[in-house]
Amino acid sequence: MPDRHIVKSYDRDLEAIQALIMKMGGMVETAILEASQSLENRDEELAERVRANDSAVDELEERVNEEAARMLALRQPSAGDLRTVLTVMKISANLERVGDYAKNMAKRTGVLLQMAPIDGSSGAIRRMSMAVGGMLKDALDAYIQRDAELAEDVRLRDHEVDQMYNALFREFLTFMMEDPRNITACMHLHFIAKNIERMGDHVTSIAEQVIYLVTGEMPEDDRPKADRTAIEAPKV
Amino acid sequence: MPDRHIVKSYDRDLEAIQALIMKMGGMVETAILEASQSLENRDEELAERVRANDSAVDELEERVNEEAARMLALRQPSAGDLRTVLTVMKISANLERVGDYAKNMAKRTGVLLQMAPIDGSSGAIRRMSMAVGGMLKDALDAYIQRDAELAEDVRLRDHEVDQMYNALFREFLTFMMEDPRNITACMHLHFIAKNIERMGDHVTSIAEQVIYLVTGEMPEDDRPKADRTAIEAPKV
Repeated sequence: MPDRHIVKSYDRDLEAIQALIMKMGGMVETAILEASQSLENRDEELAERVRANDSAVDELEERVNEEAARMLALRQPSAGDLRTVLTVMKISANLERVGDYAKNMAKRTGVLLQMAPIDGSSGAIRRMSMAVGGMLKDALDAYIQRDAELAEDVRLRDHEVDQMYNALFREFLTFMMEDPRNITACMHLHFIAKNIERMGDHVTSIAEQVIYLVTGEMPEDDRPKADRTAIEAPKV
Repeated sequence: MPDRHIVKSYDRDLEAIQALIMKMGGMVETAILEASQSLENRDEELAERVRANDSAVDELEERVNEEAARMLALRQPSAGDLRTVLTVMKISANLERVGDYAKNMAKRTGVLLQMAPIDGSSGAIRRMSMAVGGMLKDALDAYIQRDAELAEDVRLRDHEVDQMYNALFREFLTFMMEDPRNITACMHLHFIAKNIERMGDHVTSIAEQVIYLVTGEMPEDDRPKADRTAIEAPKV
C-alpha cells in the first residue's frame, strides 16, 4: 500500500510543522506579554530578555519554511494539502512579524526607562497587549481545531484593539501639548501603541488564513477600518 | 518528448508570474513617488488616487498567489524551480506591504493638508521616498537579471534611508518642542517617515530574496541596524 504510506508520512510531516508553529506561537505570545510587563514594572532585565529571545522565533520561522519547502518538493501534495502547507508558511511569517514588533517594543522600553514615566500609559499599553495576546492564542487554537467561527471572532476583536490605539493616540497628543517635556517619551510610547495595533493586524491575518483554510474563501473585508487617526484629524 | 513539454510550460507559467510581479512593482513604485508628491504639492486629488489604486496591487498579489499555487500543484517543480516559485510569492507579499504603506501615507496626507505645513518636511520626505523608489526599481531589476551584486547594493543602501529617518525623527521632536501647535502635524509626518523607513525594510527583504535565489544562501545580517531611535534616546 504505497499510497497509504505516502499519506501517512505526509500527515506526520504536517504534524511536525504544526508543532513548530505552536511552539513559535507560544514564544510570541510570551514575548508580547513580557514586553508590556517590562514597561509597566520598569524591568530592564526582562526587556533585555525579550529582545534576546526573538532570534529563537526567527530560527523557528526558517525551520518552518525549510520543512514546508521540503514537503512541497517531496510529497507533491494535492490541492487541499497544498493549501494547508502554504497557509502554514503564511502563519509563520505573520508570527515572525509579531515577534519582531514585540522585540521593538522591548527595545523602546529600554529607552523609556531613562525618562520619567507618563501617567497611566503603561497600564493602557498592557491592556492592549493582553487583548492582542488573547487574540493570538485564539487564532492558533482556531487553526488547530479548524474552527472558522473562532477565527471570525478573533477578526472582529481586532476592532477593540484599534479603538484602544485611537484612544491612546489622542491621550499622547494631549500629554505632549500640556508639557513639552513629555514629547520624547510620548513619541516612543506612541510607537509602542502603534506596534501593538500592527500586531493585532497580523493576528487578524492569521485568523483570515484559518477562515480561508476551512471555508476555501477569504472573508469579505467588512471589518471596521483599523487606524482612524489616518483618516480623521484627532480632536484634542 | 513529454519532459521537454513540461519544462516549456513551466517556463511559460513562471514568465507569466514574473510579468505580474513586474507590473505590481511598477505600480508600487509609482504609488511611493505619487504619495510623496501629493504631500509636497498639497495635492489632495493625487493622494486620493494613490489610495484608490492600492486595491489593484492587492488583486495582483492574489493573482500571483493563485498562479504560484497552481504551478506547485500541477508542475511538481524541482528543488531549484520550487525555490523560484516560493521566492516569487515572498516578493509579491513584500510588494503588497510596500503598496499598503504608500496607501497609508496618502491617507495621512489627506489629514495633513488640513493643517499648516511644517517647514522643509515634505521635501525631506520626498527625498526619502525617492531613495526607496530607486531601491525598489533596482531590487526588481536584480531579480529579473538574477544579479546578486545589485541586490547586495540595494541592501546596503537601506542604511541611508534609515539615516534619513533618524534625522527626521530628531527634527520633528525639535519642531514639537518649539511650538506645541506643531505637535499634531509632526505626529502624522513622523508616521509617514516611519512608513517609508519600513518600505525600505521590505525592499531590502526583496533584495535578500534575490541573493538567496542566486547564491542559495541568505545574506548574513551584518547590515547596520535600522531604526536607532529605538535603542538610543535622541539628543535634542
